[in-house]
Amino acid sequence: MSSDDERAAALRSNEAFYRAFGAGDYSAMESLWARAETVLCIHPGGPPIHGRDAVMESWREILSQPPPIEHRDARVEIVRGVAFVTCVESISGRLLAATNVFVWESSRWRLTHHQASPIAAPAPLHAPGSDTVH
Amino acid sequence: MSSDDERAAALRSNEAFYRAFGAGDYSAMESLWARAETVLCIHPGGPPIHGRDAVMESWREILSQPPPIEHRDARVEIVRGVAFVTCVESISGRLLAATNVFVWESSRWRLTHHQASPIAAPAPLHAPGSDTVH
Repeated sequence: MSSDDERAAALRSNEAFYRAFGAGDYSAMESLWARAETVLCIHPGGPPIHGRDAVMESWREILSQPPPIEHRDARVEIVRGVAFVTCVESISGRLLAATNVFVWESSRWRLTHHQASPIAAPAPLHAPGSDTVH
Repeated sequence: MSSDDERAAALRSNEAFYRAFGAGDYSAMESLWARAETVLCIHPGGPPIHGRDAVMESWREILSQPPPIEHRDARVEIVRGVAFVTCVESISGRLLAATNVFVWESSRWRLTHHQASPIAAPAPLHAPGSDTVH
């Protein structure tokens, strides 16, 4: 598979992730996560979750009441054969910065990591000068 | 290198990352990030940042006024030869969930990705029932 094809396929898996998320489709979500590799996940506001059982349990809960979710600005970087996709999510009108990391497994890019974190307005926590915004 | 040695070395690079962060040591921070791979970073409250120049510029700003930072609960998973370290950061008393991803480059684990997101109290954004907390 060419590098361009790899990247396009990673973006398709990223799209499939958000389709499953928005539809509350646990079965599709479950099939998107890797089986041969350890998986990990950090949901907005939550701590790190390690291991397939715990990660899938977190998705089962979330997908039981799926929020309206959209995403944009998806961008993929292939690093050592692992696909890092970043994008901006919109959940109920709140923006989040997300990283979805995929490994090639069983003829498809499958998730090994997901993290989404709220994008603050007006300034990021670390930014110099953010204390002066009141 | 054995698997245990690999993991111990990844945790040492993670420690070095937080030492450089807390000390505001830009030179040490810069040397910790990979050169042969694309790097990306999502700071708390911020959007995705791609590419070494933009990522290092963000660190230069942050490290000019470094916040007091501690970390705990570091845990490493090696996935396809890439080291994923999660931990809990404490910045000025606020807790964050962090992922630091390292690749082996020039005899050391070096960062290819960092993302930190605030841990909410009492409930994560996605959690069913969180709407009832007022």
